[in-house]
Amino acid sequence: MDLAHLPPDLQEVARFHGHLCPGLLIGYRAAKAAARALDLGRSQDEELVAVVENDSCSVDAFQALLGTTFGKGNLKWQDHGKQVFTVTDRRQNRAVRVAFTGDALRPRRPDGSVDRQAFMEILLAAPDEQILKIQEKPPAPPEVARIEPSLTCARCGEAVQASKAVQKDGQPLCRPCAREARP
Amino acid sequence: MDLAHLPPDLQEVARFHGHLCPGLLIGYRAAKAAARALDLGRSQDEELVAVVENDSCSVDAFQALLGTTFGKGNLKWQDHGKQVFTVTDRRQNRAVRVAFTGDALRPRRPDGSVDRQAFMEILLAAPDEQILKIQEKPPAPPEVARIEPSLTCARCGEAVQASKAVQKDGQPLCRPCAREARP
Repeated sequence: MDLAHLPPDLQEVARFHGHLCPGLLIGYRAAKAAARALDLGRSQDEELVAVVENDSCSVDAFQALLGTTFGKGNLKWQDHGKQVFTVTDRRQNRAVRVAFTGDALRPRRPDGSVDRQAFMEILLAAPDEQILKIQEKPPAPPEVARIEPSLTCARCGEAVQASKAVQKDGQPLCRPCAREARP
Repeated sequence: MDLAHLPPDLQEVARFHGHLCPGLLIGYRAAKAAARALDLGRSQDEELVAVVENDSCSVDAFQALLGTTFGKGNLKWQDHGKQVFTVTDRRQNRAVRVAFTGDALRPRRPDGSVDRQAFMEILLAAPDEQILKIQEKPPAPPEVARIEPSLTCARCGEAVQASKAVQKDGQPLCRPCAREARP
């Protein structure tokens, strides 16, 4: 698939992910639908938060498109193995849940394998209602991330976030050192 | 800080993260040092893998710069609260561990608070040896991510990754439905 013919925001998503694939397109369509439902732009800080119920390619589309990133603390992973995404806008106090429902549209080759190229064409062209379930729901955003002081691990001398340090004989250790120091 | 005067790759990192902050700069410097140590470009698929020992802003620099992203499965989080990052290149079978050591350089105002602006200037200008410990180490890359078939949850009807489904009365449920169905 020629990237140059894709919408510019999808090109950016693919550049971030490193390649184009069906999973990324599922996330792209879901993120676009969430953005449209709540009239969202990109999250500069933690205005938006995405709860994602899988850790597959699709999530990278939310990171690149909505700015709900792992490092900013506004991407929360629930290990459900579901292509389901709930985006909350803290400013509007609104949330939308988007579930991918297009699994049955996966085109199969005679040998049973998925024709990924054809699936991508479908994911690009299908109307929302054919591949997504979109529901506004009561917002329940997670807490905002906080910055914590650091301690120095008494064993390796490296800095460690205070709440992750382990006290041993009255001294703070980082978790890897605490594991190694275990009798 | 005027973004336009920053190196283009840092501008891209800041655009992805949504803003510039000390944590992002820590990640930027660490990711650049890892890339230099192993002569790395951006990971299009899972050629590279980053094990990150925190979930703070710094990680977004690894995602944006090295393509070790949450959705691609080549970003592994260990909850140690440490600014430590280990990048493995599967092709070269080499790994480098980068630890941020510049905590003491944080400039304090008379009231004890950190002058974030001044800290960012330091993080931009300091030589590697003043803020980073960089060590090549034996590679121990995690397994490559795999694609799994989906089942349909017998309760909500949504698709769920086979290995995450819960069997109940001989039928597959997704984890949220299994929790709600618990007697």
